[in-house]
Amino acid sequence: MDVMKTSKKIVERNGGNVSEIYFVACGGSLVDMYVSDFFVRSESAHITSGWYTANEFVHAAPKKLGSTSVVILCSHSGDTPETVAAAALARERGAQTVGLTYNKQAKLLEQSDYSFIYEWGDETRVHNNPMAIILDLTINLVDEVEGYAHIEEFRKGMGLIDTVVGNAEKQVEPRTAAFADKYQREPMFYILASGSSYGHAYGFAICSLMEMQWLDAAPIHSGEFFHGPFEVTDEDTPFIVVMGLGRTRELDERALAFLKTHAGKIEVVDAKELGLDMIDDSVNEYFNPILFYSVLSRYRYALSLRRGHDLDVRRYMGKVEY
Amino acid sequence: MDVMKTSKKIVERNGGNVSEIYFVACGGSLVDMYVSDFFVRSESAHITSGWYTANEFVHAAPKKLGSTSVVILCSHSGDTPETVAAAALARERGAQTVGLTYNKQAKLLEQSDYSFIYEWGDETRVHNNPMAIILDLTINLVDEVEGYAHIEEFRKGMGLIDTVVGNAEKQVEPRTAAFADKYQREPMFYILASGSSYGHAYGFAICSLMEMQWLDAAPIHSGEFFHGPFEVTDEDTPFIVVMGLGRTRELDERALAFLKTHAGKIEVVDAKELGLDMIDDSVNEYFNPILFYSVLSRYRYALSLRRGHDLDVRRYMGKVEY
Repeated sequence: MDVMKTSKKIVERNGGNVSEIYFVACGGSLVDMYVSDFFVRSESAHITSGWYTANEFVHAAPKKLGSTSVVILCSHSGDTPETVAAAALARERGAQTVGLTYNKQAKLLEQSDYSFIYEWGDETRVHNNPMAIILDLTINLVDEVEGYAHIEEFRKGMGLIDTVVGNAEKQVEPRTAAFADKYQREPMFYILASGSSYGHAYGFAICSLMEMQWLDAAPIHSGEFFHGPFEVTDEDTPFIVVMGLGRTRELDERALAFLKTHAGKIEVVDAKELGLDMIDDSVNEYFNPILFYSVLSRYRYALSLRRGHDLDVRRYMGKVEY
Repeated sequence: MDVMKTSKKIVERNGGNVSEIYFVACGGSLVDMYVSDFFVRSESAHITSGWYTANEFVHAAPKKLGSTSVVILCSHSGDTPETVAAAALARERGAQTVGLTYNKQAKLLEQSDYSFIYEWGDETRVHNNPMAIILDLTINLVDEVEGYAHIEEFRKGMGLIDTVVGNAEKQVEPRTAAFADKYQREPMFYILASGSSYGHAYGFAICSLMEMQWLDAAPIHSGEFFHGPFEVTDEDTPFIVVMGLGRTRELDERALAFLKTHAGKIEVVDAKELGLDMIDDSVNEYFNPILFYSVLSRYRYALSLRRGHDLDVRRYMGKVEY
């Protein structure tokens, strides 16, 4: 479906009002929604936002969930039981549901008032991946309901992001190989980020490292780093600092400055140095995670090659009962 | 100050309306606010809630922050610069600020319209610790503004929680020693929880293990476990499962069932078995973190003794520039 038409329809059905937008999914799909939740939290004057792992949404649903709520759900397979159940609950409460999936026969689609079958794979243009579609839809919803001052800059950014990502992927190729060489025997990684990018610190930990490489990992919010976590800093512990553009960059810079003095193993992935400043300053922070997803995927791929651990190997997921 | 009087004053100043409650702090103080944010998200029909590490709140403040917002801030020392700055920003925007601290001369108090100097230490009754005060204040605010159906059960629970915690602390004493014996040489722990308890999975990781023991650690939401993280499960990796009472208990039980089949090292801390069901079912989930804080503090103390690593030793915090 078309993002702008969908956002218009949703808002029209509610007589111009949307009171809540809930982002509900599991694992990697939930990660992709973090930036949209961040956008609503920081830019909307009226709309409440919520970011939920699907099973928590089902078991402890927000009291606010109702007819003027919009629930955006995403499942790559389209059949994730928790996400399908969350969509069904949202409908029972009278909310409008938007489902995103890669699977045209997905059960999620049966519970979705609006649906997006997204593109996926190496050749895909990133502005058609679920993260970008959800962000685009969210920003259009906020714009429809209350106006968003930088909607034009955002739309221009959507026209540029594929180029930025394409360039950045080439730019990091040699350093992903060096990273894999250097860190191939490490058992544990910390990933630091803040603001719109924090979702991808979490995502790189739980999906790329834990799920796909069976490596220990933990995300740390750069703003929290100095209030506990930094005490583990030493010469041996690897830290990946995911530095975005935008308002919270200063938090990442502060963490990096500390690490440069006290840590021995630091990898910096910096949106500024990777050309994201091609997009207007008023909105480029919202593109951080789109860039980081693609670039960090190159890092994990290089690591998987060097470790001889294929990214698609699982020992439990889809293999045992759970 | 008195919680009920304070909540009445806050609501009266706004002509009966509170549109947002923001919970803003750093590290352990932020952990203590998680349950209050969870309460507003799941139980309030009208009030928007936000849970922010202070420096992110300052750099990317919510657009909604304004004269009908309440910002609750907590800093043990009372001088955490990010938290003091967040309070100042909240005031600039016209919000009402509530500051909690242990320090009567705290800078935070200068930026607080209402303040609570809380008790601390071994002899303290837990219902006077910051977590309980903030929860009490939050629930009273919601009750004042829109009514909360279980306010009486909650108040009864506040009268019982000290007894529950006291009993539980005695009950876990032998097993904290066994835990410390068994896990004293482990370099890394995962902590699982969900719902109102998730904050303490995060807190035990960043404060008790990373900050106070210089051990690697990561929290995992029980609902997210099966969507990536569980692929690290093996005979050697220790998992601490923090099982609360309430609506999301099923998520923890599912994670535990999987671990019992596939993991070799599991420690269960179960609110039900520790007697929290003494408090009414309609509200006992909100007391999970108050119980878990005290009980998990016994675990960390036992571990610190066995490891010969004093809980108060820091290498960076308050010792170097950052």
